[in-house]
Amino acid sequence: MTEDHSLRRDTAVPAIDLEDAIDSGDLESVRAWFAAQNTVTISEELGRLDHGERAVAFRLLEKDRALAVFEYMDISHQRELLEALRSDRASELLRGLQDDDRARLIGEAPATVASKILADLPADKREATSRLLGYPPESAGRLMTPAQAVLDPDMTREDALDKLRGRRLRNRDIAVLAVTDETRRLLGVVNLSDLVTAADGARVGDLMSKETHSVRATADQEVAARLVQEADLLALPVVDEESRIVGMITVDDAMEALEIEVTEDAYRGGGSEPLGEPYLSATVFTLARKRGVWLVVLILAAVLTINVMSTFEGTLNKIVVLATFVPMIIGTGGNAGSQAASSVVRALAVDEVRPRDLVRVVWREVRVGLMLGAFLAVLTFPFIAVIYEPRIAATISLTIVGICAWACIVGGVLPLVAKKIGVDPAVFSTPVVSTLVDATGLIIYFTIAQVILAPQLAAAG
Amino acid sequence: MTEDHSLRRDTAVPAIDLEDAIDSGDLESVRAWFAAQNTVTISEELGRLDHGERAVAFRLLEKDRALAVFEYMDISHQRELLEALRSDRASELLRGLQDDDRARLIGEAPATVASKILADLPADKREATSRLLGYPPESAGRLMTPAQAVLDPDMTREDALDKLRGRRLRNRDIAVLAVTDETRRLLGVVNLSDLVTAADGARVGDLMSKETHSVRATADQEVAARLVQEADLLALPVVDEESRIVGMITVDDAMEALEIEVTEDAYRGGGSEPLGEPYLSATVFTLARKRGVWLVVLILAAVLTINVMSTFEGTLNKIVVLATFVPMIIGTGGNAGSQAASSVVRALAVDEVRPRDLVRVVWREVRVGLMLGAFLAVLTFPFIAVIYEPRIAATISLTIVGICAWACIVGGVLPLVAKKIGVDPAVFSTPVVSTLVDATGLIIYFTIAQVILAPQLAAAG
Repeated sequence: MTEDHSLRRDTAVPAIDLEDAIDSGDLESVRAWFAAQNTVTISEELGRLDHGERAVAFRLLEKDRALAVFEYMDISHQRELLEALRSDRASELLRGLQDDDRARLIGEAPATVASKILADLPADKREATSRLLGYPPESAGRLMTPAQAVLDPDMTREDALDKLRGRRLRNRDIAVLAVTDETRRLLGVVNLSDLVTAADGARVGDLMSKETHSVRATADQEVAARLVQEADLLALPVVDEESRIVGMITVDDAMEALEIEVTEDAYRGGGSEPLGEPYLSATVFTLARKRGVWLVVLILAAVLTINVMSTFEGTLNKIVVLATFVPMIIGTGGNAGSQAASSVVRALAVDEVRPRDLVRVVWREVRVGLMLGAFLAVLTFPFIAVIYEPRIAATISLTIVGICAWACIVGGVLPLVAKKIGVDPAVFSTPVVSTLVDATGLIIYFTIAQVILAPQLAAAG
Repeated sequence: MTEDHSLRRDTAVPAIDLEDAIDSGDLESVRAWFAAQNTVTISEELGRLDHGERAVAFRLLEKDRALAVFEYMDISHQRELLEALRSDRASELLRGLQDDDRARLIGEAPATVASKILADLPADKREATSRLLGYPPESAGRLMTPAQAVLDPDMTREDALDKLRGRRLRNRDIAVLAVTDETRRLLGVVNLSDLVTAADGARVGDLMSKETHSVRATADQEVAARLVQEADLLALPVVDEESRIVGMITVDDAMEALEIEVTEDAYRGGGSEPLGEPYLSATVFTLARKRGVWLVVLILAAVLTINVMSTFEGTLNKIVVLATFVPMIIGTGGNAGSQAASSVVRALAVDEVRPRDLVRVVWREVRVGLMLGAFLAVLTFPFIAVIYEPRIAATISLTIVGICAWACIVGGVLPLVAKKIGVDPAVFSTPVVSTLVDATGLIIYFTIAQVILAPQLAAAG
């Protein structure tokens, strides 16, 4: 994604390896490279360095550039740089951030650090930041930017545009403007484009959008961000309990919040806790810790499989060949369960499926599981019948049908139950679902085996 | 996410079950409910109905509302409705769509249907749509909206604003305006907010953003969408090979493209092909087909585990208890591999890791795997030693260390290799990685067992 996306870059790109240049102390090349790149690329490339290199490189940026690059960095890298830089440089960077970005950064710092940072800010920024910090973590209030300009429905188009004149305002902060009554109760929103294109003298109240979405400041951040996406909004008003405007969630912040959620779901889906920082920046110990939690839970759950295997040790002793198929059978169960779970987790994440759809989901998954199981059974039966014997083949085929149906139900139902009881559905990840299906799948397998292979077992006994 | 997010909704919400109301023919309640809801909620709820109900409900919407609701629907539901509605109604809906949305819908229709739809459009829309359809599927050109207004650097602020006056323009289409020379070569962009807030007489050329990102129309859609996200853009100019402006990718379309990518990754991560439509809308047969492809591949790969198990059948015959631990061991290997794969797949998706980081990734994963394996080994050794015997416990513990390290390497490397050779890294999903690790893990297990348990094996032989 670094190819060809900036006009500035097209003009002159000294092709250097940033890491090598820093390590070899060739700081002139680094400066030249910075001058030729856009801020987003610089912040991306800095994100790929290790933390010592990053601090060195960052100090080489000119002042204005440094602030812009800092804004685009991952929050874990921002925190790390603030610690590495001299305190006057750090407070400068913090002052330059948007109020919402600054609040997010401070919200993640230890309390003592946070209060020191707050004390260093100029009064107006301190106030705006503290207000945002008053909202619970992960709430819409934390994600919003304080409203930059609020209009009155009786203003004319010209009054409204005059109110914006001469101020330094970001495009995304005024693309959508809140319209309120005299007590700051939200009446609606007006698009900047509608103000611009309207006829002279048009009333703001008449230009207001017919449909206004809004969220409470205490609402869940993800819910708010998803609304921005679904309704194609550039900004979403955030209100207090009395419907008074307190801020706006801009589309860029909504995208970032969704991206973080998606990353968390991706990690949980693979059976580990989210890192909260980029993969290459995390220490090996952090990686091991975030994964280890789940691996321990899963290996304890896997003790169930040892119990099941021990219970049926007599059967296994008599017909050792049954052991041969264990990995394939539990693997297939795990795979079928994982497919069902990942579909349903994703459908829940985008609100296509809700917990009350339980019966519909079960009914779909039973049929899908039986269909898949039957297909795989028909596919494998002849081979096993020829290489081993028909009764063994029948055992395996029937087990596959049963285990696929069962795995699809388990994979489909668990995320719905999780959501219902307020747990992140993504914790019913592939590893969790497979581990649960492993033990129950073995019971299905050995039960079927004992019935179909009864003559052999009796002969061997 | 349907709670409390619309002002309109707050006023009067008849609490009805839409599905029941439609099924029981209580169309008045449905109409009343529509009147009380916002368009986004209506389109969401319609998306949860089955297709017959959806067509009935959609016909009850008043004309303007219907168009707005239609715009927010999933593309698979749009297509389905177009088929269900009378052709004059269908062409009306199509005419009302944005050019890029219409092109995407037509691009997915069979060629004969597509050309009929195109023929029914008014000349200007037909032309705009055909032009977008000329770009390859999944390209930036398909995602863009034709540029609505292009400015000249020598215009004053007032000239520029006058150019927009009186036109019906969507907020997101003019939040960022392209500035070009007389041959339409892109010089930069200017934010609508900067035009509005600037002093009288300011030159467009002076108000231009210092940094302008752009992509070629043939560039990958996902790359373009990710740039919009990373650089916090409201719109990204799309240019042809001569750097002439051809359109803009607006932030809402970028979000939608990313959402589709994320859904695809989520499905692939769980080991199935993406559905391309909402979970509840897909037929059971479609679900089975999308999953079946991979299940068949995986069960064929699992034949390897049968081979490995057969190879070591002699060992298993002598020490049947070894079979007892097979599910736990391959489960743990699969889980560790799946954790590594999901981290690296996600890191690749957000460009934190690139194929050339192979050595760094391997070095991290080896250490993480050994650390996790050692921890699990220490945790399980005493129990197995007490319940079974120390040599068995030593076999299992050493296997866990080996298998965790091996699984982390496999899970970390395969996605990088996939990316390098141009395959979607997400196909190295949890099920694929676990299946690959299963067979190799068993070889590690039995090899270690043959060495450590040599005395027992000799005694049994």
